Amino acid sequence: MPPTKISLLGTGFIAGIHLESYRRFVPDAEVVAVYSRSRERAEAFGRTHGIGRCYDDLDRAATDPDCDVVDVCIPNDLHARATIAAAKAGKHVIIEKPLCLTLDEADAMIAVCKANGRKLMYAEELCFAPKYERVRRLVVEGAVGRVFHLRQCEKHSGPHSDWFYDHARSGGGALMDMGCHGLAWFRWMLGGQPRALSVSAHMQTGLIHEGRTRCEEHSVCIVEFEGGAVGVAENSWATLGGMEDRVEVSGTGGVIFADLFMGSSALTYSENGYGYAMEKAGSTRGWTFTMFEEAFNQGYPHELKHFIECVREDTQPLVTGEDGRAVLELMCAAYHSARIGQKVTMPFDAPRSTRPIDLWLGA
Amino acid sequence: MPPTKISLLGTGFIAGIHLESYRRFVPDAEVVAVYSRSRERAEAFGRTHGIGRCYDDLDRAATDPDCDVVDVCIPNDLHARATIAAAKAGKHVIIEKPLCLTLDEADAMIAVCKANGRKLMYAEELCFAPKYERVRRLVVEGAVGRVFHLRQCEKHSGPHSDWFYDHARSGGGALMDMGCHGLAWFRWMLGGQPRALSVSAHMQTGLIHEGRTRCEEHSVCIVEFEGGAVGVAENSWATLGGMEDRVEVSGTGGVIFADLFMGSSALTYSENGYGYAMEKAGSTRGWTFTMFEEAFNQGYPHELKHFIECVREDTQPLVTGEDGRAVLELMCAAYHSARIGQKVTMPFDAPRSTRPIDLWLGA
Amino acid sequence: MPPTKISLLGTGFIAGIHLESYRRFVPDAEVVAVYSRSRERAEAFGRTHGIGRCYDDLDRAATDPDCDVVDVCIPNDLHARATIAAAKAGKHVIIEKPLCLTLDEADAMIAVCKANGRKLMYAEELCFAPKYERVRRLVVEGAVGRVFHLRQCEKHSGPHSDWFYDHARSGGGALMDMGCHGLAWFRWMLGGQPRALSVSAHMQTGLIHEGRTRCEEHSVCIVEFEGGAVGVAENSWATLGGMEDRVEVSGTGGVIFADLFMGSSALTYSENGYGYAMEKAGSTRGWTFTMFEEAFNQGYPHELKHFIECVREDTQPLVTGEDGRAVLELMCAAYHSARIGQKVTMPFDAPRSTRPIDLWLGA
Amino acid sequence: MPPTKISLLGTGFIAGIHLESYRRFVPDAEVVAVYSRSRERAEAFGRTHGIGRCYDDLDRAATDPDCDVVDVCIPNDLHARATIAAAKAGKHVIIEKPLCLTLDEADAMIAVCKANGRKLMYAEELCFAPKYERVRRLVVEGAVGRVFHLRQCEKHSGPHSDWFYDHARSGGGALMDMGCHGLAWFRWMLGGQPRALSVSAHMQTGLIHEGRTRCEEHSVCIVEFEGGAVGVAENSWATLGGMEDRVEVSGTGGVIFADLFMGSSALTYSENGYGYAMEKAGSTRGWTFTMFEEAFNQGYPHELKHFIECVREDTQPLVTGEDGRAVLELMCAAYHSARIGQKVTMPFDAPRSTRPIDLWLGA
Repeated sequence: MPPTKISLLGTGFIAGIHLESYRRFVPDAEVVAVYSRSRERAEAFGRTHGIGRCYDDLDRAATDPDCDVVDVCIPNDLHARATIAAAKAGKHVIIEKPLCLTLDEADAMIAVCKANGRKLMYAEELCFAPKYERVRRLVVEGAVGRVFHLRQCEKHSGPHSDWFYDHARSGGGALMDMGCHGLAWFRWMLGGQPRALSVSAHMQTGLIHEGRTRCEEHSVCIVEFEGGAVGVAENSWATLGGMEDRVEVSGTGGVIFADLFMGSSALTYSENGYGYAMEKAGSTRGWTFTMFEEAFNQGYPHELKHFIECVREDTQPLVTGEDGRAVLELMCAAYHSARIGQKVTMPFDAPRSTRPIDLWLGA
Repeated sequence: MPPTKISLLGTGFIAGIHLESYRRFVPDAEVVAVYSRSRERAEAFGRTHGIGRCYDDLDRAATDPDCDVVDVCIPNDLHARATIAAAKAGKHVIIEKPLCLTLDEADAMIAVCKANGRKLMYAEELCFAPKYERVRRLVVEGAVGRVFHLRQCEKHSGPHSDWFYDHARSGGGALMDMGCHGLAWFRWMLGGQPRALSVSAHMQTGLIHEGRTRCEEHSVCIVEFEGGAVGVAENSWATLGGMEDRVEVSGTGGVIFADLFMGSSALTYSENGYGYAMEKAGSTRGWTFTMFEEAFNQGYPHELKHFIECVREDTQPLVTGEDGRAVLELMCAAYHSARIGQKVTMPFDAPRSTRPIDLWLGA
Repeated sequence: MPPTKISLLGTGFIAGIHLESYRRFVPDAEVVAVYSRSRERAEAFGRTHGIGRCYDDLDRAATDPDCDVVDVCIPNDLHARATIAAAKAGKHVIIEKPLCLTLDEADAMIAVCKANGRKLMYAEELCFAPKYERVRRLVVEGAVGRVFHLRQCEKHSGPHSDWFYDHARSGGGALMDMGCHGLAWFRWMLGGQPRALSVSAHMQTGLIHEGRTRCEEHSVCIVEFEGGAVGVAENSWATLGGMEDRVEVSGTGGVIFADLFMGSSALTYSENGYGYAMEKAGSTRGWTFTMFEEAFNQGYPHELKHFIECVREDTQPLVTGEDGRAVLELMCAAYHSARIGQKVTMPFDAPRSTRPIDLWLGA
Repeated sequence: MPPTKISLLGTGFIAGIHLESYRRFVPDAEVVAVYSRSRERAEAFGRTHGIGRCYDDLDRAATDPDCDVVDVCIPNDLHARATIAAAKAGKHVIIEKPLCLTLDEADAMIAVCKANGRKLMYAEELCFAPKYERVRRLVVEGAVGRVFHLRQCEKHSGPHSDWFYDHARSGGGALMDMGCHGLAWFRWMLGGQPRALSVSAHMQTGLIHEGRTRCEEHSVCIVEFEGGAVGVAENSWATLGGMEDRVEVSGTGGVIFADLFMGSSALTYSENGYGYAMEKAGSTRGWTFTMFEEAFNQGYPHELKHFIECVREDTQPLVTGEDGRAVLELMCAAYHSARIGQKVTMPFDAPRSTRPIDLWLGA
């Protein structure tokens, strides 16, 4: 069986991680095309990585006739357009978080993929990160009894690319960008599709990106689930010192703590500094937590390999567009909660064509 | 100057810690009387520790003619009565958390102490725990810029004494018992008397003490303060594995993590187990986090020494009845928030004679 | 290019890790044959893993006509015989540590592979473990200046298989079994082939395997290298609590600490226990350090993938039979040092047909 | 009973720690005199701390008529002279490590104290550091079975004061300065006076203090004790990043790890840095391990309180001049071992008037 051919949309940070993961860990996949809105960047990426076709036209990249799969690693506001174009052209789609900007977009994406019999995988890598997957299996084994509390933090000092800070393009700040991970992970840990009973959220702004963005820089979001479990997602674009990604699980029979970056790293003291410690780490002088195999430890290879297997064996991905939509719905409720200063009871009848952050800022 | 004489009310866990702290670290203090509602326990405690007068009558103990200070380490529902009796008899009072059960009681306690020119110290040891005090000074030094997020966890598997589980006597569960620490610490970290803007809380019950109590076993409480800082207190009577007491401080210029128990302990693997690892630790077989100098590390000696100095030098304690009252007010708002499922705006006009937990359970 | 075909000698713990690593991470490799001295075990392993040919005859397995590579995962005393048979039959060989039992064997293995133009890779996974490889690159980057001290620990409570405890078959205890890792890693960190100036070692026995073995259960081995760096290898078959594998690097410009197991794990408290925490962990009740992706984190996939690439692209493995021989030489010096209670100056003219441990025990 | 009066010899780093410890934790002690060879420093110290008598004459300070105890915190080469003068004048003596420079000095000190019926305490604070004392009691409780291996590290980037680097005054480098702690701790952990069977040591120089000192900057010292336990002391003046002080205990029934500084600290990330992280920490920007109550955590108050009690109650100190002498003897053997490149069998007949380091450097 020949390799599954992929058109990779994007040449940024996350596109690089996907490419590395395919190359090193998914032998059945072959990236045959790449897109960037800048022709130079597309060609430079293609040249560096030996990818034959380089596009600066999104629709053409998403419908490349020789690819089987489109891998969407472009800004949030282009997710729906790329997915719909690809699915109409008969491509399976794997898409980086968040799924898209509005529930309308989500519904359209899901519907088009369904109508065309195409798979739509929501690429939530925390469902595949090997340490967190071990945590999930501990829970399934009964190691900590009945889970009643989940905490997930993802924090750093803010994204590199400008579009994240433009709320019209990103649809939100720390919660939209990183809280989506925690919310997806809560659902995953609670069996996949637990019913959410309520959402409440606190947003903070004006911390370290004052003047650059209207997006929230720090958020705390609490979700109550049917069966009694509570999830607390804490997210930040205003936390210095490198990437923080950790989880806590509390059950009636025990607890689990897992830390994806610091908690796996080597501990280094360097008088003069060195090249790279971990994502968003800043200076490397003095004490640093030095990471390694970051893509693997975050589960990208496992996630992409899983999707390629789904495509090749015609099975259902573990995390789908519906899951991405459910996370988006929780985020809509969270921003609304932050606006009204109240807990929002689920299901929340969110406006279907409004970006999450606009439910907080006002349209 | 002769030692300051103390009547110690209580012979339980916390009374033992106070006694040890006085004896080892506060040479100017002398415990001269002890009270337990059980005459046997009072006498056994007195005998063991060489304390001359042993009472099973609370009012007589609180008004012991030869003491200068009454140290209140008895169940919550007796706090007001003991304090008022002591102050009327001209004693200075130091009182374990929480201050009392209702705002009416708090007001009466404060008023009586004031009227009698007596000091009333609210014994919040986290304001004195040396690691946390170092954290506070880091913040004061500007090490982490402007603080915008505080987290404090205190969790264990539930108190030993039965009265804690009787909500009429304790006035609440994990939040009342342990969340009071976090709330007091937030105020302390933010300068002492920051204005709270809102309180919201989630309560969980039926976890591991099902049938034993109507109190909440796990709580998350979020307070927004003037100036923008947010505090998250997470508390539990349903967390196994020993005492968890940790803080996180996020500022615009950095972060601080401090862990009072695990994060100071020796790490032990013992095939056969041993005597004692830490408060509430359960089994000592396998891996355990072995604590030492627990009273000192939690700041009890520093706290008691400070109070004795205040008494001897006639100065104002750093943490007072007013602070205890403010924490009680936040807790009232928190339980009310849990009931209505909504954030409560402060100031919250709490019923003045209702126990905090009754604002959640309904009276 | 068709996959490279492998005959896997052994069905034990390490053979299982190799198989998993090939299957998941080395798509160009195919295990086509397996050997165990027990026909039942060979067939069970083959059946479970879908391997076509199952041998209980070592020489036939090592010369299987349809394989390109022989992967040696059998007891130490069979290493030379299997390698020599395989090389004579035109197979490339990858061999688990230690290389063999005597310098004569080592020389013969190297010579036969050379004469037949076959590759001989010494499978030292610590040279490939991703966290340690990151440590090595930190050093190469100059992050810690000139390295003057290296420490490597590998400790657990003793091997599962009986043959390890029979010194005639294993050639040594904790040092031979695990110290070989540290010694190889020192050489690797110091550029590959640093000249050793001296070796000294302390051995302890009669700890927890009294009566079962004459092998040392705990050892400390110190090597001085040209240029001034000192390496300390500490190894144990008598350390409870699970696998310990850590390194420390001290340089004139900084330090690095890395811990392969505990230092990457999730931290779990389980009242009832669960299936598996980590290699040699014992009980899973109470606190445990839960590992995940153990093979990957120890570098097995990287190591095997590297070798298969060497075979397919006809390049030289990074770690060779000569390296295995150099480690064996250091171990001979170490056991001799333990016997005479003195530091041994290198080069040490070890008897060429004596097992390392016999230099300590006396032949 | 009036306070015990102390003449404090020295105004440097360690003298400051002793003073703080007396003041805060030893109410029965009163520092009434202070000595520095510089009159200005003595007077500045006295003024700052309210000490009445300030000396720049060592003998007068050591024989101050109004003091009961002399506390020796001056350079190593003055230890014997001060102790002997004090004891002859009827003072009890507590002396910082190491005891003195030669065995002759040690014998004289012990003899004079004995002849004058004065107590001589060897102030090894690791015997009193509360975390390590908890470790010792774990061992006594049987938590880890029979102890067969001890490791103690004390490392930093080198002392502040110049005299340490002058081997004629200090008598040695990292081992003499810090290894004395490890060696004393091994003895303490093994019951107090275990017989040492052998000593071997490796010394390194020319690391980061090239040209400033002939003292060793890094050392590894291994002691075999009767009963089979082995102790490994690793010490450094060339380790950057702050104070490292940790122990490992391996027994037949378990293991213990304890870390006095990093392992108790708060973890701080500070963009701009702050005042002080821990002893020898260097920069406070980026990640740092922030210590607190350093004197207490190292056991100084416990140690000094113990000695003052011994004086007041006329009991024998737990650690005496004989212990200091035994440690000195082990160090003599260690330096000799480093010179001859061989393990030294104990008892080692060290030249009685030679400084330890001269046994390595040659006189």
